[in-house]
Amino acid sequence: MHAFDEAIALDRLDTDVFQGHIPGAYGNMVGPFGGIIAAVVLNAVLQHPQRIGNPVALTVNFAGPIADAVFQLKARPVRTNRSNQHWILELWQADTLAVSATALTARCQEPSIPESEWAMPAAPAAGQIPVLTSQLPLPWLEQYELRFIKGALDFSGQPSRTSETLLWVRDRIERPLDFPSLAAMADVFFPRAYIRQQRTFPAGTVSMTIYFHVGAQLLERTVQPLLGQARGQCFAQSYFDQAAGLWSSDGVLLTTSTQMVYQKMQ
Amino acid sequence: MHAFDEAIALDRLDTDVFQGHIPGAYGNMVGPFGGIIAAVVLNAVLQHPQRIGNPVALTVNFAGPIADAVFQLKARPVRTNRSNQHWILELWQADTLAVSATALTARCQEPSIPESEWAMPAAPAAGQIPVLTSQLPLPWLEQYELRFIKGALDFSGQPSRTSETLLWVRDRIERPLDFPSLAAMADVFFPRAYIRQQRTFPAGTVSMTIYFHVGAQLLERTVQPLLGQARGQCFAQSYFDQAAGLWSSDGVLLTTSTQMVYQKMQ
Repeated sequence: MHAFDEAIALDRLDTDVFQGHIPGAYGNMVGPFGGIIAAVVLNAVLQHPQRIGNPVALTVNFAGPIADAVFQLKARPVRTNRSNQHWILELWQADTLAVSATALTARCQEPSIPESEWAMPAAPAAGQIPVLTSQLPLPWLEQYELRFIKGALDFSGQPSRTSETLLWVRDRIERPLDFPSLAAMADVFFPRAYIRQQRTFPAGTVSMTIYFHVGAQLLERTVQPLLGQARGQCFAQSYFDQAAGLWSSDGVLLTTSTQMVYQKMQ
Repeated sequence: MHAFDEAIALDRLDTDVFQGHIPGAYGNMVGPFGGIIAAVVLNAVLQHPQRIGNPVALTVNFAGPIADAVFQLKARPVRTNRSNQHWILELWQADTLAVSATALTARCQEPSIPESEWAMPAAPAAGQIPVLTSQLPLPWLEQYELRFIKGALDFSGQPSRTSETLLWVRDRIERPLDFPSLAAMADVFFPRAYIRQQRTFPAGTVSMTIYFHVGAQLLERTVQPLLGQARGQCFAQSYFDQAAGLWSSDGVLLTTSTQMVYQKMQ
Protein backbone atom coordinates (compact mmCIF):
# COMPACT_ATOMS: atom_id res chain seq x y z
CA MET A 1 0.00 0.00 0.00
CA HIS A 2 1.35 3.45 -0.93
CA ALA A 3 2.19 5.59 2.12
CA PHE A 4 -0.25 8.23 0.82
CA ASP A 5 -3.16 5.78 0.71
CA GLU A 6 -2.29 4.62 4.20
CA ALA A 7 -2.19 8.21 5.43
CA ILE A 8 -5.62 9.16 4.06
CA ALA A 9 -7.37 5.87 4.93
CA LEU A 10 -10.60 6.27 6.91
CA ASP A 11 -12.93 3.89 8.73
CA ARG A 12 -16.57 4.81 8.66
CA LEU A 13 -17.99 4.73 12.21
CA ASP A 14 -21.44 6.20 11.61
CA THR A 15 -23.54 7.98 8.95
CA ASP A 16 -21.38 11.12 8.92
CA VAL A 17 -18.43 10.05 11.09
CA PHE A 18 -15.08 8.65 10.02
CA GLN A 19 -12.00 7.67 12.01
CA GLY A 20 -8.39 7.85 10.91
CA HIS A 21 -4.80 8.27 12.03
CA ILE A 22 -2.15 10.05 10.00
CA PRO A 23 1.13 8.12 10.24
CA GLY A 24 4.49 9.75 10.96
CA ALA A 25 5.56 9.35 7.33
CA TYR A 26 3.71 12.60 6.56
CA GLY A 27 4.86 14.44 9.70
CA ASN A 28 5.76 18.13 9.60
CA MET A 29 7.42 20.30 12.26
CA VAL A 30 4.43 20.00 14.60
CA GLY A 31 1.84 17.36 13.67
CA PRO A 32 1.17 16.21 10.11
CA PHE A 33 1.88 18.14 6.87
CA GLY A 34 -1.04 20.45 6.05
CA GLY A 35 -1.39 18.95 2.58
CA ILE A 36 -2.04 15.48 3.96
CA ILE A 37 -4.65 16.94 6.32
CA ALA A 38 -6.40 18.57 3.35
CA ALA A 39 -6.24 15.21 1.55
CA VAL A 40 -7.76 13.34 4.52
CA VAL A 41 -10.58 15.88 4.85
CA LEU A 42 -11.32 15.63 1.14
CA ASN A 43 -11.20 11.85 1.33
CA ALA A 44 -14.02 11.85 3.91
CA VAL A 45 -16.18 13.70 1.36
CA LEU A 46 -15.20 11.29 -1.40
CA GLN A 47 -15.86 8.21 0.79
CA HIS A 48 -19.24 9.48 1.98
CA PRO A 49 -22.04 7.38 0.41
CA GLN A 50 -24.24 10.45 -0.20
CA ARG A 51 -21.58 12.38 -2.10
CA ILE A 52 -22.39 13.56 -5.61
CA GLY A 53 -19.82 14.79 -8.12
CA ASN A 54 -16.18 15.78 -7.96
CA PRO A 55 -14.47 18.37 -5.76
CA VAL A 56 -14.72 21.96 -6.96
CA ALA A 57 -13.69 23.96 -3.87
CA LEU A 58 -12.14 23.03 -0.54
CA THR A 59 -11.31 25.28 2.42
CA VAL A 60 -9.39 23.76 5.33
CA ASN A 61 -8.84 25.70 8.56
CA PHE A 62 -6.00 24.48 10.79
CA ALA A 63 -7.24 25.29 14.30
CA GLY A 64 -4.52 23.43 16.18
CA PRO A 65 -1.98 20.61 15.81
CA ILE A 66 -3.17 17.04 15.29
CA ALA A 67 -1.67 14.69 17.88
CA ASP A 68 -0.17 11.32 16.85
CA ALA A 69 -3.40 9.46 17.67
CA VAL A 70 -6.72 8.58 16.05
CA PHE A 71 -9.10 11.36 15.10
CA GLN A 72 -12.81 11.51 14.36
CA LEU A 73 -13.82 13.33 11.20
CA LYS A 74 -17.42 14.46 10.88
CA ALA A 75 -18.50 15.09 7.27
CA ARG A 76 -21.99 16.52 6.81
CA PRO A 77 -23.60 17.15 3.42
CA VAL A 78 -25.42 20.32 4.48
CA ARG A 79 -27.08 21.04 1.16
CA THR A 80 -27.58 18.99 -1.96
CA ASN A 81 -28.72 20.81 -5.09
CA ARG A 82 -29.45 19.39 -8.51
CA SER A 83 -25.86 19.48 -9.65
CA ASN A 84 -23.80 20.37 -6.57
CA GLN A 85 -23.42 19.65 -2.88
CA HIS A 86 -22.06 21.64 0.08
CA TRP A 87 -20.16 20.05 2.96
CA ILE A 88 -19.12 21.08 6.47
CA LEU A 89 -16.35 19.03 8.07
CA GLU A 90 -14.88 18.91 11.56
CA LEU A 91 -11.86 16.90 12.68
CA TRP A 92 -11.83 16.19 16.42
CA GLN A 93 -9.42 14.55 18.81
CA ALA A 94 -11.09 13.86 22.19
CA ASP A 95 -12.96 17.10 22.98
CA THR A 96 -10.82 19.36 20.84
CA LEU A 97 -11.52 20.50 17.30
CA ALA A 98 -8.27 20.46 15.34
CA VAL A 99 -9.57 21.23 11.82
CA SER A 100 -12.70 22.76 10.32
CA ALA A 101 -13.43 22.67 6.62
CA THR A 102 -16.01 23.29 3.93
CA ALA A 103 -16.17 21.65 0.54
CA LEU A 104 -18.20 21.87 -2.63
CA THR A 105 -18.62 18.93 -4.97
CA ALA A 106 -20.39 19.12 -8.31
CA ARG A 107 -21.57 16.84 -11.03
CA CYS A 108 -20.37 18.38 -14.28
CA GLN A 109 -19.99 17.10 -17.75
CA GLU A 110 -16.37 16.11 -18.02
CA PRO A 111 -15.03 19.50 -19.00
CA SER A 112 -12.93 20.16 -21.99
CA ILE A 113 -9.40 21.40 -21.25
CA PRO A 114 -9.90 24.54 -19.15
CA GLU A 115 -8.66 27.84 -20.54
CA SER A 116 -6.32 29.62 -18.18
CA GLU A 117 -5.34 33.27 -18.00
CA TRP A 118 -2.66 32.42 -15.48
CA ALA A 119 -0.14 31.23 -18.05
CA MET A 120 2.04 28.26 -17.23
CA PRO A 121 5.47 29.68 -16.37
CA ALA A 122 8.34 28.73 -18.62
CA ALA A 123 10.46 26.05 -16.99
CA PRO A 124 13.27 23.70 -17.97
CA ALA A 125 12.35 20.01 -18.14
CA ALA A 126 12.22 18.29 -14.77
CA GLY A 127 15.07 15.96 -15.73
CA GLN A 128 17.40 18.95 -15.98
CA ILE A 129 16.82 20.04 -12.37
CA PRO A 130 18.28 18.16 -9.37
CA VAL A 131 15.89 16.73 -6.78
CA LEU A 132 15.89 18.64 -3.49
CA THR A 133 17.88 16.98 -0.74
CA SER A 134 16.50 18.96 2.12
CA GLN A 135 18.35 20.32 5.12
CA LEU A 136 14.97 20.32 6.91
CA PRO A 137 14.27 17.11 8.85
CA LEU A 138 10.61 16.94 7.79
CA PRO A 139 9.27 13.42 7.06
CA TRP A 140 6.65 14.63 4.54
CA LEU A 141 9.38 16.10 2.34
CA GLU A 142 10.69 12.55 1.82
CA GLN A 143 7.36 11.62 0.23
CA TYR A 144 7.88 14.00 -2.70
CA GLU A 145 10.44 14.75 -5.33
CA LEU A 146 10.74 18.52 -5.43
CA ARG A 147 12.88 20.20 -8.08
CA PHE A 148 13.30 23.93 -7.50
CA ILE A 149 13.67 26.12 -10.57
CA LYS A 150 13.27 29.38 -8.67
CA GLY A 151 12.74 30.47 -5.07
CA ALA A 152 14.38 27.61 -3.18
CA LEU A 153 15.26 27.96 0.50
CA ASP A 154 19.01 28.53 0.68
CA PHE A 155 19.29 29.54 4.39
CA SER A 156 21.50 32.46 3.36
CA GLY A 157 19.51 34.85 5.55
CA GLN A 158 19.68 37.32 2.62
CA PRO A 159 16.24 38.95 2.40
CA SER A 160 14.70 38.99 -1.02
CA ARG A 161 11.99 41.26 -2.39
CA THR A 162 10.16 38.39 -4.00
CA SER A 163 8.87 35.19 -2.50
CA GLU A 164 8.10 33.52 -5.82
CA THR A 165 8.84 29.80 -6.08
CA LEU A 166 8.70 27.67 -9.20
CA LEU A 167 9.15 23.91 -8.84
CA TRP A 168 8.40 20.50 -10.24
CA VAL A 169 6.64 18.14 -7.84
CA ARG A 170 5.79 14.44 -7.94
CA ASP A 171 5.19 11.60 -5.49
CA ARG A 172 8.59 10.07 -4.76
CA ILE A 173 7.02 6.61 -5.10
CA GLU A 174 4.85 6.61 -8.20
CA ARG A 175 1.08 6.84 -7.64
CA PRO A 176 -1.69 7.94 -10.06
CA LEU A 177 -2.99 11.46 -9.44
CA ASP A 178 -6.39 11.83 -7.80
CA PHE A 179 -8.19 14.64 -6.00
CA PRO A 180 -6.67 13.94 -2.55
CA SER A 181 -3.11 13.81 -3.90
CA LEU A 182 -3.73 16.98 -5.91
CA ALA A 183 -4.97 18.71 -2.72
CA ALA A 184 -1.82 17.64 -0.90
CA MET A 185 0.47 18.85 -3.69
CA ALA A 186 -1.21 22.27 -3.58
CA ASP A 187 0.48 22.66 -0.19
CA VAL A 188 4.08 21.59 -0.92
CA PHE A 189 5.40 25.16 -1.02
CA PHE A 190 7.36 26.37 2.02
CA PRO A 191 5.96 29.39 3.85
CA ARG A 192 6.51 32.42 1.61
CA ALA A 193 8.17 34.36 4.46
CA TYR A 194 10.92 31.71 4.58
CA ILE A 195 11.72 32.40 0.94
CA ARG A 196 11.52 36.14 1.43
CA GLN A 197 13.92 35.97 4.38
CA GLN A 198 15.86 32.83 3.39
CA ARG A 199 15.64 31.47 6.92
CA THR A 200 13.12 29.48 8.96
CA PHE A 201 11.17 30.41 12.09
CA PRO A 202 7.89 29.25 13.68
CA ALA A 203 5.12 29.61 11.10
CA GLY A 204 2.05 27.60 10.18
CA THR A 205 -0.87 27.76 7.77
CA VAL A 206 -4.15 28.69 9.45
CA SER A 207 -6.45 28.48 6.42
CA MET A 208 -6.10 27.11 2.89
CA THR A 209 -8.52 27.20 -0.06
CA ILE A 210 -8.12 25.03 -3.15
CA TYR A 211 -10.15 25.26 -6.39
CA PHE A 212 -10.12 22.21 -8.66
CA HIS A 213 -10.38 23.02 -12.37
CA VAL A 214 -10.34 19.52 -13.87
CA GLY A 215 -12.62 16.52 -13.79
CA ALA A 216 -11.75 12.99 -12.74
CA GLN A 217 -11.06 11.69 -16.27
CA LEU A 218 -8.65 14.46 -17.17
CA LEU A 219 -6.94 14.05 -13.81
CA GLU A 220 -6.48 10.34 -14.31
CA ARG A 221 -4.71 11.00 -17.60
CA THR A 222 -2.38 13.62 -16.08
CA VAL A 223 1.19 12.50 -15.77
CA GLN A 224 3.45 13.66 -12.95
CA PRO A 225 5.50 15.76 -12.28
CA LEU A 226 3.36 18.88 -11.95
CA LEU A 227 4.69 22.40 -12.24
CA GLY A 228 3.93 24.58 -9.22
CA GLN A 229 4.19 28.32 -8.83
CA ALA A 230 3.63 30.12 -5.53
CA ARG A 231 3.92 33.75 -4.54
CA GLY A 232 3.19 35.76 -1.45
CA GLN A 233 0.88 38.70 -2.03
CA CYS A 234 0.87 40.50 1.30
CA PHE A 235 3.02 40.28 4.44
CA ALA A 236 1.74 41.85 7.65
CA GLN A 237 3.25 41.50 11.10
CA SER A 238 1.66 38.18 12.13
CA TYR A 239 0.03 36.83 8.97
CA PHE A 240 0.93 36.57 5.31
CA ASP A 241 -0.74 34.93 2.34
CA GLN A 242 0.21 32.74 -0.61
CA ALA A 243 -1.36 32.25 -4.03
CA ALA A 244 -0.37 29.12 -5.95
CA GLY A 245 -1.10 27.21 -9.13
CA LEU A 246 -0.37 23.64 -10.21
CA TRP A 247 -0.06 22.75 -13.92
CA SER A 248 0.25 19.44 -15.70
CA SER A 249 3.46 19.20 -17.67
CA ASP A 250 1.46 19.80 -20.86
CA GLY A 251 0.17 23.12 -19.55
CA VAL A 252 -3.27 22.46 -18.02
CA LEU A 253 -3.96 24.53 -14.90
CA LEU A 254 -5.24 21.88 -12.48
CA THR A 255 -5.67 23.85 -9.23
CA THR A 256 -5.47 27.40 -7.99
CA SER A 257 -5.14 27.88 -4.26
CA THR A 258 -4.55 30.46 -1.56
CA GLN A 259 -3.50 30.22 2.03
CA MET A 260 -3.05 32.45 5.06
CA VAL A 261 -0.07 31.70 7.28
CA TYR A 262 0.70 32.72 10.85
CA GLN A 263 4.24 33.65 11.82
CA LYS A 264 5.44 34.07 15.35
CA MET A 265 6.77 37.58 15.65
CA GLN A 266 10.55 37.56 15.91
CA MET B 1 -29.16 54.77 9.37
CA HIS B 2 -26.94 53.88 6.40
CA ALA B 3 -28.47 51.24 4.11
CA PHE B 4 -25.39 49.07 4.69
CA ASP B 5 -25.85 49.07 8.47
CA GLU B 6 -29.51 48.25 8.01
CA ALA B 7 -28.62 45.37 5.71
CA ILE B 8 -26.12 43.75 8.07
CA ALA B 9 -28.10 44.34 11.30
CA LEU B 10 -28.65 41.23 13.43
CA ASP B 11 -30.77 40.42 16.47
CA ARG B 12 -29.25 37.95 18.90
CA LEU B 13 -31.79 35.19 19.66
CA ASP B 14 -29.63 32.81 21.66
CA THR B 15 -25.99 32.14 22.61
CA ASP B 16 -24.86 31.37 19.07
CA VAL B 17 -27.95 32.33 17.04
CA PHE B 18 -28.71 35.59 15.29
CA GLN B 19 -31.63 36.67 13.13
CA GLY B 20 -31.59 39.12 10.27
CA HIS B 21 -33.21 40.12 6.99
CA ILE B 22 -31.33 41.62 4.06
CA PRO B 23 -33.41 44.40 2.50
CA GLY B 24 -33.99 44.77 -1.23
CA ALA B 25 -31.56 47.68 -1.41
CA TYR B 26 -28.72 45.14 -1.72
CA GLY B 27 -30.56 42.80 -4.07
CA ASN B 28 -28.78 41.05 -6.93
CA MET B 29 -30.19 39.03 -9.85
CA VAL B 30 -31.45 36.28 -7.56
CA GLY B 31 -31.43 37.08 -3.84
CA PRO B 32 -29.00 39.50 -2.21
CA PHE B 33 -25.57 40.58 -3.50
CA GLY B 34 -22.90 38.05 -2.39
CA GLY B 35 -20.81 40.81 -0.81
CA ILE B 36 -23.61 41.82 1.56
CA ILE B 37 -24.06 38.15 2.53
CA ALA B 38 -20.34 37.94 3.35
CA ALA B 39 -20.71 41.14 5.40
CA VAL B 40 -23.70 39.77 7.33
CA VAL B 41 -21.89 36.51 8.09
CA LEU B 42 -18.84 38.43 9.30
CA ASN B 43 -21.04 40.71 11.36
CA ALA B 44 -22.37 37.72 13.31
CA VAL B 45 -18.78 36.90 14.30
CA LEU B 46 -18.09 40.53 15.23
CA GLN B 47 -21.31 40.81 17.28
CA HIS B 48 -20.71 37.53 19.14
CA PRO B 49 -19.83 38.26 22.80
CA GLN B 50 -17.14 35.55 22.86
CA ARG B 51 -15.27 36.86 19.83
CA ILE B 52 -11.60 37.75 20.23
CA GLY B 53 -9.60 39.82 17.75
CA ASN B 54 -10.16 41.02 14.20
CA PRO B 55 -11.01 39.06 11.05
CA VAL B 56 -8.05 37.42 9.33
CA ALA B 57 -9.75 34.92 6.99
CA LEU B 58 -13.33 34.38 5.85
CA THR B 59 -14.74 31.73 3.52
CA VAL B 60 -18.39 32.00 2.49
CA ASN B 61 -20.13 29.22 0.54
CA PHE B 62 -23.30 30.18 -1.31
CA ALA B 63 -25.37 27.00 -1.21
CA GLY B 64 -28.59 28.50 -2.52
CA PRO B 65 -30.44 31.80 -2.90
CA ILE B 66 -31.60 33.68 0.20
CA ALA B 67 -35.33 34.44 0.04
CA ASP B 68 -36.70 37.90 0.90
CA ALA B 69 -37.48 36.86 4.49
CA VAL B 70 -35.78 36.57 7.88
CA PHE B 71 -32.92 34.13 8.30
CA GLN B 72 -31.28 32.50 11.29
CA LEU B 73 -27.52 32.68 11.43
CA LYS B 74 -25.70 30.26 13.72
CA ALA B 75 -22.18 31.41 14.64
CA ARG B 76 -20.14 28.92 16.69
CA PRO B 77 -16.65 29.66 18.02
CA VAL B 78 -15.34 26.10 17.54
CA ARG B 79 -11.84 26.69 18.85
CA THR B 80 -10.29 29.52 20.81
CA ASN B 81 -6.51 29.59 21.07
CA ARG B 82 -4.31 32.08 22.90
CA SER B 83 -4.31 34.60 20.08
CA ASN B 84 -6.85 33.35 17.54
CA GLN B 85 -10.30 31.85 17.19
CA HIS B 86 -11.97 29.62 14.58
CA TRP B 87 -15.63 29.95 13.62
CA ILE B 88 -18.18 27.83 11.76
CA LEU B 89 -21.30 29.64 10.53
CA GLU B 90 -24.55 28.46 8.99
CA LEU B 91 -27.30 30.65 7.58
CA TRP B 92 -30.71 28.93 7.53
CA GLN B 93 -34.16 29.85 6.23
CA ALA B 94 -36.77 27.44 7.59
CA ASP B 95 -35.20 24.00 7.14
CA THR B 96 -32.84 24.97 4.34
CA LEU B 97 -29.21 25.93 4.67
CA ALA B 98 -28.49 28.83 2.31
CA VAL B 99 -24.93 29.70 3.33
CA SER B 100 -22.09 27.97 5.15
CA ALA B 101 -18.95 29.78 6.24
CA THR B 102 -15.79 29.58 8.28
CA ALA B 103 -13.88 32.48 9.77
CA LEU B 104 -10.68 33.10 11.66
CA THR B 105 -10.25 36.05 13.99
CA ALA B 106 -6.99 36.94 15.72
CA ARG B 107 -5.71 39.30 18.31
CA CYS B 108 -2.59 40.86 16.84
CA GLN B 109 -0.57 43.87 17.72
CA GLU B 110 -1.83 46.57 15.42
CA PRO B 111 0.40 45.77 12.47
CA SER B 112 2.64 48.19 10.76
CA ILE B 113 1.78 48.87 7.12
CA PRO B 114 1.89 45.46 5.44
CA GLU B 115 4.44 44.86 2.69
CA SER B 116 2.88 43.67 -0.51
CA GLU B 117 4.39 41.83 -3.44
CA TRP B 118 1.21 42.31 -5.43
CA ALA B 119 1.99 45.87 -6.43
CA MET B 120 -0.83 48.37 -6.59
CA PRO B 121 -1.66 48.82 -10.27
CA ALA B 122 -1.10 52.25 -11.76
CA ALA B 123 -4.40 54.09 -12.10
CA PRO B 124 -5.58 57.61 -12.88
CA ALA B 125 -7.14 59.48 -9.96
CA ALA B 126 -10.75 58.52 -9.27
CA GLY B 127 -11.95 62.04 -10.09
CA GLN B 128 -10.79 61.57 -13.69
CA ILE B 129 -12.96 58.51 -14.28
CA PRO B 130 -16.73 58.68 -14.74
CA VAL B 131 -18.97 56.82 -12.29
CA LEU B 132 -20.62 53.74 -13.82
CA THR B 133 -24.22 54.21 -14.79
CA SER B 134 -25.11 50.61 -15.19
CA GLN B 135 -27.29 48.99 -17.80
CA LEU B 136 -27.84 46.18 -15.31
CA PRO B 137 -30.94 46.65 -13.11
CA LEU B 138 -29.22 45.41 -9.95
CA PRO B 139 -30.15 47.30 -6.75
CA TRP B 140 -26.80 46.61 -5.02
CA LEU B 141 -24.97 48.44 -7.81
CA GLU B 142 -26.76 51.62 -6.75
CA GLN B 143 -25.11 51.36 -3.32
CA TYR B 144 -21.64 51.86 -4.77
CA GLU B 145 -19.77 54.30 -6.95
CA LEU B 146 -17.79 52.18 -9.36
CA ARG B 147 -15.32 53.80 -11.75
CA PHE B 148 -13.90 51.39 -14.31
CA ILE B 149 -10.37 52.01 -15.51
CA LYS B 150 -10.06 48.69 -17.31
CA GLY B 151 -12.22 45.64 -17.95
CA ALA B 152 -15.69 47.19 -17.83
CA LEU B 153 -18.70 45.31 -19.17
CA ASP B 154 -19.56 46.85 -22.55
CA PHE B 155 -22.07 44.23 -23.82
CA SER B 156 -20.27 44.19 -27.18
CA GLY B 157 -20.20 40.40 -27.23
CA GLN B 158 -16.59 40.66 -28.44
CA PRO B 159 -14.66 37.97 -26.58
CA SER B 160 -11.47 39.11 -24.93
CA ARG B 161 -8.46 37.05 -23.93
CA THR B 162 -8.20 38.77 -20.60
CA SER B 163 -10.77 39.19 -17.89
CA GLU B 164 -8.80 41.73 -15.88
CA THR B 165 -10.76 44.57 -14.31
CA LEU B 166 -9.33 47.62 -12.57
CA LEU B 167 -11.75 49.98 -10.80
CA TRP B 168 -12.23 52.50 -8.03
CA VAL B 169 -14.97 51.64 -5.54
CA ARG B 170 -16.64 53.52 -2.71
CA ASP B 171 -19.94 53.53 -0.87
CA ARG B 172 -22.24 55.86 -2.80
CA ILE B 173 -23.38 57.36 0.50
CA GLU B 174 -20.33 57.99 2.63
CA ARG B 175 -19.67 55.52 5.44
CA PRO B 176 -16.43 54.78 7.34
CA LEU B 177 -14.70 51.55 6.27
CA ASP B 178 -14.93 48.58 8.59
CA PHE B 179 -14.44 44.84 8.20
CA PRO B 180 -17.98 44.07 6.96
CA SER B 181 -17.88 46.83 4.33
CA LEU B 182 -14.43 45.71 3.23
CA ALA B 183 -15.74 42.13 2.85
CA ALA B 184 -18.61 43.42 0.71
CA MET B 185 -16.32 45.50 -1.50
CA ALA B 186 -14.14 42.44 -2.14
CA ASP B 187 -17.11 41.13 -4.14
CA VAL B 188 -18.03 44.12 -6.33
CA PHE B 189 -16.42 42.68 -9.46
CA PHE B 190 -18.72 41.21 -12.09
CA PRO B 191 -18.22 37.54 -12.93
CA ARG B 192 -14.95 37.26 -14.85
CA ALA B 193 -16.64 35.29 -17.66
CA TYR B 194 -18.87 38.32 -18.36
CA ILE B 195 -15.77 40.44 -18.96
CA ARG B 196 -14.13 37.72 -21.03
CA GLN B 197 -17.23 37.40 -23.21
CA GLN B 198 -18.63 40.95 -22.86
CA ARG B 199 -22.12 39.63 -22.31
CA THR B 200 -24.14 38.32 -19.38
CA PHE B 201 -25.67 34.90 -18.71
CA PRO B 202 -26.72 32.97 -15.61
CA ALA B 203 -23.73 32.76 -13.26
CA GLY B 204 -23.25 32.90 -9.52
CA THR B 205 -20.46 32.65 -6.96
CA VAL B 206 -20.46 29.35 -5.08
CA SER B 207 -17.54 30.02 -2.73
CA MET B 208 -15.51 33.08 -1.78
CA THR B 209 -12.46 33.46 0.47
CA ILE B 210 -11.21 36.80 1.78
CA TYR B 211 -7.97 37.46 3.67
CA PHE B 212 -7.75 40.68 5.67
CA HIS B 213 -4.27 42.19 5.89
CA VAL B 214 -4.92 45.25 8.06
CA GLY B 215 -5.98 45.86 11.64
CA ALA B 216 -8.92 47.90 12.84
CA GLN B 217 -6.96 51.10 13.47
CA LEU B 218 -5.40 51.20 10.03
CA LEU B 219 -8.77 50.40 8.48
CA GLU B 220 -10.45 53.24 10.33
CA ARG B 221 -7.94 55.68 8.91
CA THR B 222 -8.36 54.40 5.35
CA VAL B 223 -10.14 56.81 3.07
CA GLN B 224 -12.40 55.65 0.21
CA PRO B 225 -12.37 55.05 -2.71
CA LEU B 226 -10.38 51.81 -2.83
CA LEU B 227 -8.65 50.51 -5.93
CA GLY B 228 -9.72 47.02 -6.92
CA GLN B 229 -8.12 44.61 -9.35
CA ALA B 230 -9.67 41.28 -10.34
CA ARG B 231 -8.62 38.63 -12.82
CA GLY B 232 -9.84 35.20 -13.75
CA GLN B 233 -7.22 32.50 -13.53
CA CYS B 234 -8.94 29.46 -14.96
CA PHE B 235 -12.13 28.90 -16.95
CA ALA B 236 -13.55 25.39 -17.21
CA GLN B 237 -16.90 24.43 -18.63
CA SER B 238 -19.10 25.01 -15.57
CA TYR B 239 -16.85 26.82 -13.09
CA PHE B 240 -14.27 29.58 -13.22
CA ASP B 241 -12.31 31.42 -10.56
CA GLN B 242 -11.34 35.00 -9.71
CA ALA B 243 -8.43 36.45 -7.74
CA ALA B 244 -8.80 40.02 -6.50
CA GLY B 245 -7.08 42.66 -4.41
CA LEU B 246 -8.29 45.89 -2.80
CA TRP B 247 -5.86 48.74 -2.08
CA SER B 248 -6.26 51.99 -0.19
CA SER B 249 -5.66 54.99 -2.41
CA ASP B 250 -2.24 55.39 -0.77
CA GLY B 251 -1.19 51.91 -1.81
CA VAL B 252 -1.88 49.60 1.15
CA LEU B 253 -3.11 46.14 0.12
CA LEU B 254 -6.12 45.68 2.42
CA THR B 255 -7.58 42.37 1.22
CA THR B 256 -6.75 39.56 -1.16
CA SER B 257 -9.59 37.27 -2.15
CA THR B 258 -10.54 34.43 -4.43
CA GLN B 259 -13.84 33.06 -5.58
CA MET B 260 -15.21 30.16 -7.59
CA VAL B 261 -18.18 30.92 -9.84
CA TYR B 262 -20.72 28.63 -11.47
CA GLN B 263 -21.93 29.37 -14.98
CA LYS B 264 -24.86 27.71 -16.62
CA MET B 265 -23.61 26.05 -19.77
CA GLN B 266 -24.72 27.95 -22.85
